Amino acid sequence: MPEALEQDYTQKQLLEVNKALSSGMFVHVRRMLAHMADCDIALLIESSPYKGRAVLWQLVDPDVQGEILEELSEDVRSGIIAQMDPTLIAAATADMDVDDLAEVLRSLPDAVYQEVIGSMDSQDQERATLALSYPEESAGALMNTDTVTIRPDVTIDVVLRYLRIKGELPEATDELYVVDKNNQFLGGVSLASLLTSNPGLTVRSIMEDEYESIPVTMDESEVAQLFERHDWISAPVLDENQHLLGRITIDDIVDVIREDAEHSMMSMAGLDDEADTFAPVVKSTQRRSLWLGINLITALSAAFVASFFESTLSILPILAVLNSIVPSMGGVAGNQTLTLVIRGMAVGHINSANQKSLVYKELAIGALNGLIWAILIASVVALWQWDFNLGLVIAFAMFMNLLAAGMAGAFIPLLLKKMNIDPALAGGVILTTVTDIVGIFAFLGTATWLLI
Amino acid sequence: MPEALEQDYTQKQLLEVNKALSSGMFVHVRRMLAHMADCDIALLIESSPYKGRAVLWQLVDPDVQGEILEELSEDVRSGIIAQMDPTLIAAATADMDVDDLAEVLRSLPDAVYQEVIGSMDSQDQERATLALSYPEESAGALMNTDTVTIRPDVTIDVVLRYLRIKGELPEATDELYVVDKNNQFLGGVSLASLLTSNPGLTVRSIMEDEYESIPVTMDESEVAQLFERHDWISAPVLDENQHLLGRITIDDIVDVIREDAEHSMMSMAGLDDEADTFAPVVKSTQRRSLWLGINLITALSAAFVASFFESTLSILPILAVLNSIVPSMGGVAGNQTLTLVIRGMAVGHINSANQKSLVYKELAIGALNGLIWAILIASVVALWQWDFNLGLVIAFAMFMNLLAAGMAGAFIPLLLKKMNIDPALAGGVILTTVTDIVGIFAFLGTATWLLI
Repeated sequence: MPEALEQDYTQKQLLEVNKALSSGMFVHVRRMLAHMADCDIALLIESSPYKGRAVLWQLVDPDVQGEILEELSEDVRSGIIAQMDPTLIAAATADMDVDDLAEVLRSLPDAVYQEVIGSMDSQDQERATLALSYPEESAGALMNTDTVTIRPDVTIDVVLRYLRIKGELPEATDELYVVDKNNQFLGGVSLASLLTSNPGLTVRSIMEDEYESIPVTMDESEVAQLFERHDWISAPVLDENQHLLGRITIDDIVDVIREDAEHSMMSMAGLDDEADTFAPVVKSTQRRSLWLGINLITALSAAFVASFFESTLSILPILAVLNSIVPSMGGVAGNQTLTLVIRGMAVGHINSANQKSLVYKELAIGALNGLIWAILIASVVALWQWDFNLGLVIAFAMFMNLLAAGMAGAFIPLLLKKMNIDPALAGGVILTTVTDIVGIFAFLGTATWLLI
Repeated sequence: MPEALEQDYTQKQLLEVNKALSSGMFVHVRRMLAHMADCDIALLIESSPYKGRAVLWQLVDPDVQGEILEELSEDVRSGIIAQMDPTLIAAATADMDVDDLAEVLRSLPDAVYQEVIGSMDSQDQERATLALSYPEESAGALMNTDTVTIRPDVTIDVVLRYLRIKGELPEATDELYVVDKNNQFLGGVSLASLLTSNPGLTVRSIMEDEYESIPVTMDESEVAQLFERHDWISAPVLDENQHLLGRITIDDIVDVIREDAEHSMMSMAGLDDEADTFAPVVKSTQRRSLWLGINLITALSAAFVASFFESTLSILPILAVLNSIVPSMGGVAGNQTLTLVIRGMAVGHINSANQKSLVYKELAIGALNGLIWAILIASVVALWQWDFNLGLVIAFAMFMNLLAAGMAGAFIPLLLKKMNIDPALAGGVILTTVTDIVGIFAFLGTATWLLI
């Protein structure tokens, strides 16, 4: 029967399991888990504080552990696998799709990896070796080998009989692929056209052969863009000689899209890779400290620049009071441009033909912003401190810094991308360094020159 | 034939069109556009500077304008529609899916909307009214009414014959829905099981009836979470009496997932709604200025707090030099926590059962971070200025501010969510205000007390 408010239901279920868990009613929890869908158990584990996870995992039926591992995010999964016995890992991964299997194997420490591979049967070892032969984040690593292929010259009737004997199709199969006897890819036939066409026709006569297939080496983000643009449900993956290797399905693409979009946001906050909301404290602190360390260097550089003006500051302490306003506004404005450009690059809007006009546009916005906020801050400061010259100084510094912010916000990600550095990861710090230093120089420098 | 490097090919195509466009070879451009896929034309328009778009749009074949409007992002689309004649809009929207139609109609100014509705035929008017009857961002607004339904008591053979007569299935159809004569939803039959089952069986015997369906009022982000968790390709939408209203397909869900994930990132930079990389300068400046205005108030508040310590600053100008370090570190650390919590809420990891342990965890990280960076900054400052007491003062301020940052970063989004305010939009400013003010107070206050 349809379930009305599934989301609320899931949340309620989670709360109940948590309650039972904290009261130590493990038998009850085990029984509840046995009735939950795999994906809900995965969500429960991901939303459990770190310590609760090991207990939960012990209570999960070993027969479904493999499916749950597939559903878990990489970070949470590797935490759980680290505490599992290698033979149990081998058993849990036995039925995994090739792409998930590769992901799990990649996350294992070397010694455990050898043990896991060693306790697999030869067929699974072969699957594992194949899965690991493609580079991470390529179409090959994302691909499954569960394609159903047919020949072009048979009739639909024959295909229908073949499918009835087969009895089942792999998940997310929306089309069968047509190949010749050398496994050369010729085209595809959708399940819908199999169902709606005259059974006397041949496969060739109904197959789609204007095909955009995916080379096995294509980057997963590009694959995701293609899926998104073409509204695909699955797509064939070919080698350089147009042989069919496998297929990619939309459920894996959804993960790539979510991860890509989140990656930018998390990277910009210096949280790269920390996809686990409830990672242990020490691990989280370690991961975040890199970013804080880099920021400390930026802040110290800014302080170092300010130290040139120590005598100015001792004469006019109001400058010290106002000193953080211009860098702060520059940081925010620059971050707006930076975010826009990083997002534009991620969705493929920015290319060599239009990046010049992007920079001009952001410079124009910077100049316009600069004008507006210069006038405003000048008025506020002039009225607050009753000092017209001070207002002029801060107005000039604001204009210069917002112009610099627009330029830096547009140039930095373009340059970083050319240097193959992830702009989301490094862009923010470099930008803040620029806007801090330009802001302080412009404000304290102009003040020293005009007011002292 | 399969196309090897489609992505590169698309980029090359875009560059060629841009070149032809800027040399004024409009006839040539028109011919190129006629050979491009709709989704590629949409990408071309989205990656064109604002002025080029109107020219490009004139060169697009009116027969495909509707499909291209469907592919465009909301922001870019409304810019183009604003320049179109209402009768042309009506013509272009005639073949749209109901959900896209609603989106376009919602973006029209009232007068144009009336004109567009007026120039539609009565069938389209009905479709439009239905589409607009569901609230924006609900399952209803996302849903299409192109379901194919069958009865439970017929045999598969009958269904197969029905489908052959029908001749075509709506896009992304992976299952047919089973309803009784009152349109009450009973279950679904996948195309795969139609193809693999014995034609003599009844629909009832092969239909899936353990169904999680979607209530028409469910929020689109919740719908997306369900799709993601269950790897669905399409799902039925029901009213409160379990009548089938329509279905939602994965291609629309992919858009929701991308938009949701981007929305957080863009909102955190104060770029809410600005999905258009090449929006006109004045419009962009307007949109971004709200955020800059709020930030100016934050920066002025911080300056106001600092102004209490003007006499301290005039005695010890080194305090002015160092004053921005502690707020800066607090801002970065707090932003890490904030981003993590916003993302955790977006993917459904955070609920009332675990938010306490989340806050404790972030407080613990804040304390540990505080300790590390307090010791480090104390050493740097004590050595740089050869002043042990100054080192102690900045260490104390750093510890307090990183503790405050962890607490604020976790509490602010939880509180904002309870108040139904988007944490991604408002969280950052509130957080910065907290870490700026705590940082300045802790540093300058302690310095005034201990060093003066």
